[in-house]
Amino acid sequence: MFVELHRGTVLESRHRVHVAVVDASGTLVAQAGDPEYRTFWRSAAKPFQALPLVEDGVAERFGLSRQDLALACASHSSEPAQVALVREFLQRVGCSERDLLCGPHRALSDAVARDYETRGVRLTAVYSNCSGKHTGMLALARHHGWPTEFYARIEHPVQQRCLKSVGTYTDVPVQDIGVAVDGCGVACFALPLRNMALAYTRLDGPILEAMMLHPELIAGEGRPCTEMMRAHPGRVVTKVGAEGVYSALLVREGLGVTLKVEDGHSVASALAIAAVLAELALKPQPPSLLKKPITNSRGETVGEMRVSGGLAR
Amino acid sequence: MFVELHRGTVLESRHRVHVAVVDASGTLVAQAGDPEYRTFWRSAAKPFQALPLVEDGVAERFGLSRQDLALACASHSSEPAQVALVREFLQRVGCSERDLLCGPHRALSDAVARDYETRGVRLTAVYSNCSGKHTGMLALARHHGWPTEFYARIEHPVQQRCLKSVGTYTDVPVQDIGVAVDGCGVACFALPLRNMALAYTRLDGPILEAMMLHPELIAGEGRPCTEMMRAHPGRVVTKVGAEGVYSALLVREGLGVTLKVEDGHSVASALAIAAVLAELALKPQPPSLLKKPITNSRGETVGEMRVSGGLAR
Repeated sequence: MFVELHRGTVLESRHRVHVAVVDASGTLVAQAGDPEYRTFWRSAAKPFQALPLVEDGVAERFGLSRQDLALACASHSSEPAQVALVREFLQRVGCSERDLLCGPHRALSDAVARDYETRGVRLTAVYSNCSGKHTGMLALARHHGWPTEFYARIEHPVQQRCLKSVGTYTDVPVQDIGVAVDGCGVACFALPLRNMALAYTRLDGPILEAMMLHPELIAGEGRPCTEMMRAHPGRVVTKVGAEGVYSALLVREGLGVTLKVEDGHSVASALAIAAVLAELALKPQPPSLLKKPITNSRGETVGEMRVSGGLAR
Repeated sequence: MFVELHRGTVLESRHRVHVAVVDASGTLVAQAGDPEYRTFWRSAAKPFQALPLVEDGVAERFGLSRQDLALACASHSSEPAQVALVREFLQRVGCSERDLLCGPHRALSDAVARDYETRGVRLTAVYSNCSGKHTGMLALARHHGWPTEFYARIEHPVQQRCLKSVGTYTDVPVQDIGVAVDGCGVACFALPLRNMALAYTRLDGPILEAMMLHPELIAGEGRPCTEMMRAHPGRVVTKVGAEGVYSALLVREGLGVTLKVEDGHSVASALAIAAVLAELALKPQPPSLLKKPITNSRGETVGEMRVSGGLAR
């Protein structure tokens, strides 16, 4: 499977895509490229970094809301309402923005980023798309009586607990999981796509519910995860990761999906996951995810990106 | 050949690179991937869109300087001095900024772009990295008595003259050259990498001189083309194109090089051309082109991009 950029009628560039689709038993039911491709799960691992909040009793202890749990799984758009909710979440677990170790960055939503530039909003840690995940990590530390300082380090018990969670849900022994530093400063995990897909078939309980009921928090207005989940309510959970990773759960079919655009292109990964979900079960996908027009500096549409090829069964 | 992104010690993403290295007879002397890969030449075709200025007597007619010719071949950084020179070039050929059909865009140099944002500089057509090429096209139209209006259209004699030039230097019959609209609005040309490389071995005369003597105009301060040419004065001409294309001439060796990063990644293409030139003849390359550190939102270096693999002879 490729995501191709056509300029006029000629192929200009192309992005290779590796896909694994598995059922709850872990059987590979469809694939493209190399379903065993090993890479970092990045933000698509967030649900499994959030699951300890439920399993260890953190959610119950602090009375976390569904929105809190959704934000712990989110790569949110830094929308004002999302940032306000993370601030409440922080307060609920007895922490403040000062405790967050995520670095700020331009909002993942262009519209939000431009709004903040126009209004001169100063970006701080809570504006990071990962601020919900980090707040969840702080809650986990508080609950267990671990220090909240240095919670981002791989040797800190918070990161060790997340690593264990990832190992459990993916069936990958912890010592076989590659570890490095994510864009937001905490640990990120490398493993085969097939195992990531398997983990998504095991999503369940309050975390699954939170993601399904709050697509507007998982990403944000106009972004692919939110749009795909809204297009098929209750049928799908989708979660983007940086560098071209995408995971999904087809709820009714019980299928887990993970794909990687080999070169890390994020627009290509959104087009690819929409095409894969359409091929497996969910048509139609949002029109913005069928193809992406390529425009030039004169505002002319001079080409488009679109998916070529499909899954092998 | 790949350009790889390593996060920590684990490979995360990779970019495939196709390379053709040919001598003046057109013999393929080294390669990687598919040297016949067909894609758009984009801005790496500019020297061949500028050659009619010399061949048709335009340079002589208007008394074009070496700097004018260099700018006609450039993807410049929109530096104030570069923009001022393009304005003089426009004047010299009896045109003004109003005649330019290139759309403005954020400067290709981050430093320049940030400076203009800070100072609130309004970007106009002359700030386009292609404004020198467009001025050359206006000069060509004036010289031949062709209308200067609509010079960007493929059916306009200016574009037909450029197409003919590309066909002649690449040995590709004009009817086999793919045509689409470039980022700046004029025609761009699709053909095999090997033929693009051949054309570079045929660069000669005032255009070659202009590029060699003005590396500061071909790109700009801190950008790869300028840095590579400065590192080995008189030994090499390099020219970037959008979507991961790079061409070069090794002057002393008489070798032409063209590469394409399959997925269009521009940072990967700069690392790749530096590695190819180093392998063929030119060591050392500027340190900034040996590898590119990957930093996260906390400012930590968490990985790097670097080239893996080399040429086959």
